[in-house]
Amino acid sequence: MSETGIFATMYSARAMRRFKSDPVPDAIISRILDAAIRAPSAGNSQQWLFIVITDAVQRRQVGDIYRRASAWVRSVYENNPPAADANRPQYERMLKSGFFLHEHMAEAPVLLVPCLRLQHPNLPASLPEEARSAIVREFPWRVGASIYPAVQNIILACRALGLGTVLTTNHMLLEDEMKQVLGLPPDVMTFGLMPIGYPAGKFGPVVRKPIADVAFRDRFPQRWQD
Amino acid sequence: MSETGIFATMYSARAMRRFKSDPVPDAIISRILDAAIRAPSAGNSQQWLFIVITDAVQRRQVGDIYRRASAWVRSVYENNPPAADANRPQYERMLKSGFFLHEHMAEAPVLLVPCLRLQHPNLPASLPEEARSAIVREFPWRVGASIYPAVQNIILACRALGLGTVLTTNHMLLEDEMKQVLGLPPDVMTFGLMPIGYPAGKFGPVVRKPIADVAFRDRFPQRWQD
Repeated sequence: MSETGIFATMYSARAMRRFKSDPVPDAIISRILDAAIRAPSAGNSQQWLFIVITDAVQRRQVGDIYRRASAWVRSVYENNPPAADANRPQYERMLKSGFFLHEHMAEAPVLLVPCLRLQHPNLPASLPEEARSAIVREFPWRVGASIYPAVQNIILACRALGLGTVLTTNHMLLEDEMKQVLGLPPDVMTFGLMPIGYPAGKFGPVVRKPIADVAFRDRFPQRWQD
Repeated sequence: MSETGIFATMYSARAMRRFKSDPVPDAIISRILDAAIRAPSAGNSQQWLFIVITDAVQRRQVGDIYRRASAWVRSVYENNPPAADANRPQYERMLKSGFFLHEHMAEAPVLLVPCLRLQHPNLPASLPEEARSAIVREFPWRVGASIYPAVQNIILACRALGLGTVLTTNHMLLEDEMKQVLGLPPDVMTFGLMPIGYPAGKFGPVVRKPIADVAFRDRFPQRWQD
């Protein structure tokens, strides 16, 4: 079967925040989910859950949470202007597009919420105190390793299937409300809110800092490309 | 240019933990890095750094940290046997392969360490206390959203280029040592350690729980497929 190439997909999976109202067929969503679960997770634990919201009432409730959390985030963005050397026009466009989504999340035909069941392991009595405290301290920082790779598979599968999406996390500021609306058990945590739909805009190249600025050889700050 | 298809790549990007000693050309590593940076990050902030270790002495130092941290993790795994209904033979194979890597990380020709510069935003005085505490509390949980999508692009790019890799995080238990060896500034944190090389084993289908077990419609626990 002919498929979109892997690199072409990555290079053009631009964040999409405006969608047509056309519904997305269930079979297409299932293909996206089937891509999500191919991602790795710690110890192949697969403690993920994916909530796919198509019901309009439920979308409005989630959209309302996102709008209120985003008002807080918006004030943070406005209080932290980027450095003068940043790509300012691109940044302004992204902010404007983000602010639009703050108000219109519920209008996307599909909202996908990637979640994880958090498993705090039983630590053996033999473990040194140094290890015990490191494991507890580091848990929140690395837990995303078991869900955000799946999120990237969702982003790429959407692009390959002609759908737009974007990873947002603002609603996590109102996590308790979100969990109540989604009926999630106490040990399940949400890690994103992804609107999915046929894009109102066009796909195009993603624009990023070059690898010369971010890649290092053997030891910081020795440049990879020298 | 003809490329591996996006779905075929995702479906066969099995974790690889045994590598041939053949070096990986710099140009190939640059293609992998060029895939990494196409991933999204919060507000397109791109605060990532990628340390590519090919020097043998440096690989041995990192491999030693990984081995010591992994000894702790190994004892946690041994103290948390999976439920009887898990795919036990697959799990045993994964553990055995993982334990092999604990001892042999330094032998991979390339070690890639994805990092993030952590930016704690200035919070405006106008922000309600509720928002302020939520932003601080939730920061570690969602920060992976700005690096693990790039990690998945690395995994997929490796697969497409015939290279094996696997995302590991055990070394984060000895983060301070790791940062010292890599010469990282205080505000930069490591989020993974990925051995990369031409695989000793074969690529093959990734085996996962079906989406029927993990996908829900509108609200937990209503199944997506019913």
